[in-house]
Amino acid sequence: MCRPRKHRIAALALLIALVGQRPANSQDPLPSWNDGPAKQAILEFVKATTTEGSPKFVPQAERIATFDQDGTIWVEQPMYTQVVYAIDRVPAIVKAKPELKNVEPYKTIRTGDHAAIAKLPMKDTYALLAAAFSGMTVEQFHSEVSKWFDTAKDRRWHRPYTELIYQPMLEVIRYLRANGYKTYIVTGGGQDFVRVYAEKVYGIAPEQIVGTVGDTKYGYDKEGRPRLTKEPKLMLLDDTTGKPEGIHMMIGRRPHAAFGNSIGDQQMLEYTGAGHGARLMMLVLHDDKEREYAYGPANGLPNSKVGTFTQALYDEAKGKGWTVISMKNDWKQIFSFAE
Amino acid sequence: MCRPRKHRIAALALLIALVGQRPANSQDPLPSWNDGPAKQAILEFVKATTTEGSPKFVPQAERIATFDQDGTIWVEQPMYTQVVYAIDRVPAIVKAKPELKNVEPYKTIRTGDHAAIAKLPMKDTYALLAAAFSGMTVEQFHSEVSKWFDTAKDRRWHRPYTELIYQPMLEVIRYLRANGYKTYIVTGGGQDFVRVYAEKVYGIAPEQIVGTVGDTKYGYDKEGRPRLTKEPKLMLLDDTTGKPEGIHMMIGRRPHAAFGNSIGDQQMLEYTGAGHGARLMMLVLHDDKEREYAYGPANGLPNSKVGTFTQALYDEAKGKGWTVISMKNDWKQIFSFAE
Repeated sequence: MCRPRKHRIAALALLIALVGQRPANSQDPLPSWNDGPAKQAILEFVKATTTEGSPKFVPQAERIATFDQDGTIWVEQPMYTQVVYAIDRVPAIVKAKPELKNVEPYKTIRTGDHAAIAKLPMKDTYALLAAAFSGMTVEQFHSEVSKWFDTAKDRRWHRPYTELIYQPMLEVIRYLRANGYKTYIVTGGGQDFVRVYAEKVYGIAPEQIVGTVGDTKYGYDKEGRPRLTKEPKLMLLDDTTGKPEGIHMMIGRRPHAAFGNSIGDQQMLEYTGAGHGARLMMLVLHDDKEREYAYGPANGLPNSKVGTFTQALYDEAKGKGWTVISMKNDWKQIFSFAE
Repeated sequence: MCRPRKHRIAALALLIALVGQRPANSQDPLPSWNDGPAKQAILEFVKATTTEGSPKFVPQAERIATFDQDGTIWVEQPMYTQVVYAIDRVPAIVKAKPELKNVEPYKTIRTGDHAAIAKLPMKDTYALLAAAFSGMTVEQFHSEVSKWFDTAKDRRWHRPYTELIYQPMLEVIRYLRANGYKTYIVTGGGQDFVRVYAEKVYGIAPEQIVGTVGDTKYGYDKEGRPRLTKEPKLMLLDDTTGKPEGIHMMIGRRPHAAFGNSIGDQQMLEYTGAGHGARLMMLVLHDDKEREYAYGPANGLPNSKVGTFTQALYDEAKGKGWTVISMKNDWKQIFSFAE
């Protein structure tokens, strides 16, 4: 087909215009980050540890990076997503065990009174999680959680929870992986819960999820087929001191980079920082009320029930040379859906 | 430098002679295996699961293969290597706690009477292992075990324990890995013990060792530096039903191939076999007294204290289509050091 010359010129002009619109820093691996010490720290760490001959070079097999989940790579306010899931499971739990109807925390949850639910003590939350995360095979649990994520939406942005991912952190995860790092999630959340979506959302495989572990029990169904049933028994609480312990059990190597946002991540960052050679320790500070949330004493704000970033943790970070990431100042864009 | 023509011809003749000596099956990925149903089962499984378009094709991310260690990929007779290590640790244990001197099993072990030591009850072995595998940081433990392997030799072949690897199984591990499989050791042995040499010996990284897990405790040394200390507390006994449970915790995916040799591996093979699509389950039968050992009822021989291959397991294998590997008939060569 012969195309008139002026059309070809117009097409060429359009092409030039489109190419011209590409940002100047199209090679920037961290486009959602503003220039500043946090971005600089990441770029310098990766360069130092992956450049052959660099005094800080790290062999590929030892390139381990660990990321807390709630509040570090996705939203944790106003409550942990897995707790929202557990609350939504209450009708099914009570249907299976009607005797729980008038027992706490089920009694309060069944009223639907958000303020009262938010005030339930921590031990009730643990009991609820144990009930919601057990009593079925590992495959049934996977399927239930997967179905829930298909329809559940958060109340602020009205979006699936799996979209409430921090775009800048996703870029860090991908950038580290592109440079030979094995990326792990190290979360206080349930290991099997996070495994349901982590591969799709973060590109992180089930075997790279270190989380709170509930016991499973091997047995057989009525037809004699083997099955693993989730038990309401805690094996590892992967939070605070449990994070380095879980990392040792699941990985067996000390990370070279660790990312967190709360006192639950303190020991993981200390343990990472105590290794020889180049180490990168970073803490996300929630100081952006407009685009996300602002909370924590290190922020001059009252503590929240989740994701406590105390003044003591802030001081330890400063004293040990960890990098504090300001969501407000360091992140150009927070979510992929919001410019 | 100019080389006379006849020398060049001689060199060429030598080259041809050398090339001519290569076995005809130089492309055989399993040269230490005799042709037969076991070798065939491995080759067919790999071909079916890695050929795009094959009805049994398995995506690379799901290619998980698990190997028991003792008696499956290295020698377990006359006693597990980690028990030999623990016995050799007794002087250090008693030095640290002199009150144990006249307590069992230390009292008997200190006599050096092999026959009496072999008769110690299982609970004493567990107590000894707990003592030998705790009371120090994870780095100190790694260093102690590493030093021991540098000098310790077995009493039959007088070789380092890390040479008592079954060459045919090493070929299977490498062959699976070359075909996109992630290879794991799933052992009743101590996870941290196996991690010391597994990368060097089997090419299997620390994060791919699923083993019996002792608790660790996060704390600080006198200078305030973080450390992980090994505690004498069992978190997971990775044997029998503990194997599928450990696989779920550490990997979170059902294996497509599993290799074992005893009732400790029964549930791992059942769990593997209960998955959809292509699955390969294999059991090593020790029936070669000349080149290694012969033991187990399935062999028409009395049970041994380690590596029990019962008649019931043999019958289950036959009934479910698992492949039993005869060391005598299926393996051309057992060790790399012995033709």
